[in-house]
Amino acid sequence: MFIRNAWYVAAWVSEIQHVPLARTLLGEPIVLFRRASGAVAAVEDRCCHRGLPLSLGEVRGETIVCGYHGISYEGDGKCAAIPGQSHVPPRMRIRSYAVVERDELVWIWMGAVADADSVLIPPYPYHNDHTQWPHLTHTQHLRCSYRLVIDNLLDLTHLAFVHKRTIGGDSDAHSKAQFSVTATERGVKFVRWLLNSVPPPTYANAVNFKGRVDRWMDFEFVAPGVVYQFTGALDVGQGAYEHGNRQGGFALRIFHGVTPETADSCFYFWSGSHGYRQNEPHVTQALFVALSSTFAEDAVILEAQHASLRRRAEPLFSTTHDRARVIAERALDKLLARERELSGT
Amino acid sequence: MFIRNAWYVAAWVSEIQHVPLARTLLGEPIVLFRRASGAVAAVEDRCCHRGLPLSLGEVRGETIVCGYHGISYEGDGKCAAIPGQSHVPPRMRIRSYAVVERDELVWIWMGAVADADSVLIPPYPYHNDHTQWPHLTHTQHLRCSYRLVIDNLLDLTHLAFVHKRTIGGDSDAHSKAQFSVTATERGVKFVRWLLNSVPPPTYANAVNFKGRVDRWMDFEFVAPGVVYQFTGALDVGQGAYEHGNRQGGFALRIFHGVTPETADSCFYFWSGSHGYRQNEPHVTQALFVALSSTFAEDAVILEAQHASLRRRAEPLFSTTHDRARVIAERALDKLLARERELSGT
Amino acid sequence: MFIRNAWYVAAWVSEIQHVPLARTLLGEPIVLFRRASGAVAAVEDRCCHRGLPLSLGEVRGETIVCGYHGISYEGDGKCAAIPGQSHVPPRMRIRSYAVVERDELVWIWMGAVADADSVLIPPYPYHNDHTQWPHLTHTQHLRCSYRLVIDNLLDLTHLAFVHKRTIGGDSDAHSKAQFSVTATERGVKFVRWLLNSVPPPTYANAVNFKGRVDRWMDFEFVAPGVVYQFTGALDVGQGAYEHGNRQGGFALRIFHGVTPETADSCFYFWSGSHGYRQNEPHVTQALFVALSSTFAEDAVILEAQHASLRRRAEPLFSTTHDRARVIAERALDKLLARERELSGT
Repeated sequence: MFIRNAWYVAAWVSEIQHVPLARTLLGEPIVLFRRASGAVAAVEDRCCHRGLPLSLGEVRGETIVCGYHGISYEGDGKCAAIPGQSHVPPRMRIRSYAVVERDELVWIWMGAVADADSVLIPPYPYHNDHTQWPHLTHTQHLRCSYRLVIDNLLDLTHLAFVHKRTIGGDSDAHSKAQFSVTATERGVKFVRWLLNSVPPPTYANAVNFKGRVDRWMDFEFVAPGVVYQFTGALDVGQGAYEHGNRQGGFALRIFHGVTPETADSCFYFWSGSHGYRQNEPHVTQALFVALSSTFAEDAVILEAQHASLRRRAEPLFSTTHDRARVIAERALDKLLARERELSGT
Repeated sequence: MFIRNAWYVAAWVSEIQHVPLARTLLGEPIVLFRRASGAVAAVEDRCCHRGLPLSLGEVRGETIVCGYHGISYEGDGKCAAIPGQSHVPPRMRIRSYAVVERDELVWIWMGAVADADSVLIPPYPYHNDHTQWPHLTHTQHLRCSYRLVIDNLLDLTHLAFVHKRTIGGDSDAHSKAQFSVTATERGVKFVRWLLNSVPPPTYANAVNFKGRVDRWMDFEFVAPGVVYQFTGALDVGQGAYEHGNRQGGFALRIFHGVTPETADSCFYFWSGSHGYRQNEPHVTQALFVALSSTFAEDAVILEAQHASLRRRAEPLFSTTHDRARVIAERALDKLLARERELSGT
Repeated sequence: MFIRNAWYVAAWVSEIQHVPLARTLLGEPIVLFRRASGAVAAVEDRCCHRGLPLSLGEVRGETIVCGYHGISYEGDGKCAAIPGQSHVPPRMRIRSYAVVERDELVWIWMGAVADADSVLIPPYPYHNDHTQWPHLTHTQHLRCSYRLVIDNLLDLTHLAFVHKRTIGGDSDAHSKAQFSVTATERGVKFVRWLLNSVPPPTYANAVNFKGRVDRWMDFEFVAPGVVYQFTGALDVGQGAYEHGNRQGGFALRIFHGVTPETADSCFYFWSGSHGYRQNEPHVTQALFVALSSTFAEDAVILEAQHASLRRRAEPLFSTTHDRARVIAERALDKLLARERELSGT
């Protein structure tokens, strides 16, 4: 069962042009397009005349036109015209979805349009600040449940094993990190400190550290599908930990948006923004490449894990590092319970 | 459920040689072969000794010989010989099918052999007349229900959208065409006239028209799997519409035979015969290439439509252009009802 | 249903190094690895923390370490350590399997470890005698039930049809071979004699025969998954048949070990040992190539047969050549019956 009454990332704003984009979300085939007036629309990717996916058609003015017999639809799903037939039956319409463009992201509400309240969209202002936080973005398709992607982000002891060659660092440091976890209204947040530790290759390549560093990892999960990450490091003695100083070292903000495609696959929308050497485009590019490599390492693990859990879900045992994950799970379970209540099942 | 008590095209006569041809029809694996005596045979593609498909074996004389332990079968499915065993149990036999070679096609009756009445085979004499109607033939595999292929042929308003680059023409002309539909005993027929219209590229490339043309499209569907098409155009003023003149312009006869492979796939047997410039082989070839391109455009639509309808069959709405399709559906439903009656389900 | 209380070949000894080897046997994902101490271990290929296949991790000392969060396991499945957590819950363990290295093979008992009695492992001493029986080995993956591989070996009349181009010989000779079949305690054995017959290409290429030969085929099936083959030929008049002489001609010992991967696939472990020209490595190599070609011919048949039987299992008819196969089937059915008894189903 999916959590339908929620906002998810459907796409990057830059992905939606005046040509149809087909994307299955929460098991529903959807076509996204930008109307002549500029607004983004999302409707069911299925003409209700003969069933052809509308994504095989084209955008004309405010409508999307079916590529089979030319029937067109408004952004709200209403049939606009049938070639050669003056009367358009009013009940001839397809499902539409509420969509909002915000912070470079296209957000979609998968429940009823009337229930869509844009106040609930998790904000990410850094995407609007290319001067302080230059970034590149990516849409990654993964053959795993979206929940495994979130789990992965909430137990960082995996860094020493999965990301040996990139952001890893040594296992001891990771598993002995200072670690404080707090439940929030819509999820969980945690801070992890690797004090007086060796900077990993990705960090050291980006910034000239003098030697060992104090490294922080600030994460917040907002159910059902967003994780904010703010990580960085300063030379030991700069007061990163003691005085909250964040200036002058390595600083990354990563946006993670995960949206189920099906029960067995998801879209992973991420961006990497850097708070150092902001006016060097090659640094932005290098960060993007480094994150791509890192997340490719995760992809191998997540897809193998998903296949394994599909074969056998139980039993699993938690460790002390699973605290944030367990709280996140409760947040998702709460949303699922409300979902069942709303749908009366 | 399939309509089994019916004749279907199994293959082109030219496809059946002295080597086995494996083809699944209506969900049943069948092997077709030409016996030494020349007659075509069709039997179950499964040796009843150890189950190997007989199509992996070879044709020897009047029999097909299994490629595993050499057991051979007659064209009527009776086991002919078991190497090294003198006694052949009489009940050791496999299913056989009634087949008839006619009009360059191999027709197969998918019900009981005893019920096969060749009088019911839809005739197509033009295949025997290479002088007046030179043609080339093709067997196309499609991942869609055979019914969608028939539907496609019965609503020609798709030409302006699907076949823009080939036989399309403009949408207005198509949807405003004169259109008369008649139910027949075994299906439906219709005539469509595009009077005083611009000839489409395929037509104009084939014949020197003076300018605008009167264009006809004559279709007849014979359930469950045949559509006859006779289309053409004459210069305006030649009396094509008013006097029934068909001489001297562009004239095409297309045979469409569609046979289910499974519920999700079919074989589409088609030929294109031209009634102009009959002694120019390159014209026959050019027509074949043009039709191949056109039907490749249909294939994209039909396979996407099938996948979409598999996900969600209902609801669908008909337009005024669906009249012929709706009558055809009734003809198929009538056959299905009889099928249920015969099978007692 | 699988016969779980039995020894199967899991791998060749040479396949198991200090890196994990993933292999699904009887539907269970297993990881095999060699510990620092040298012993082979086999455990469930699934970390019980978050479900990742352990085969994506690495071997460290006596343990296998998960590639996700570094949790490690002993060869008996007990969790050895959790990075950053001093307490290891005693019930945190995964399934382990009894394994024995013998005769160059790694044998695995798929039932409970406590029931594993190595006395029941089918012996094959020839693998230990590279002087008299030089050989090469192979692991072949087949998309068919393991039972079809055994069936194939027990009805040699297939040689004339499947192996025309390799070890075939003529159909008449095969189906008229002298043939004696004996049920054994754990399976069946048979001897087949082609007296005064033309040596097949593989034989003739290996040994200089004067002309026609007496050819024997000695087979023994040990349920559930082993077939011993001893075949060869001597010039007519050398007393192969009459006096049991086996010296100086062509002599092959082939080990066949077949282990189910799933209900629809299996691993086929085979070796080919030659009892002639033992100190010519190119002869060993040539034999390996010849057997590879031969078994590739079988693979085509077996996979097509499996797919066909999946579509329709019944009816099948036996011939007189199926005697050994029918007895083997009874031996397997007896094991299956005991299996049901043990599992109380």
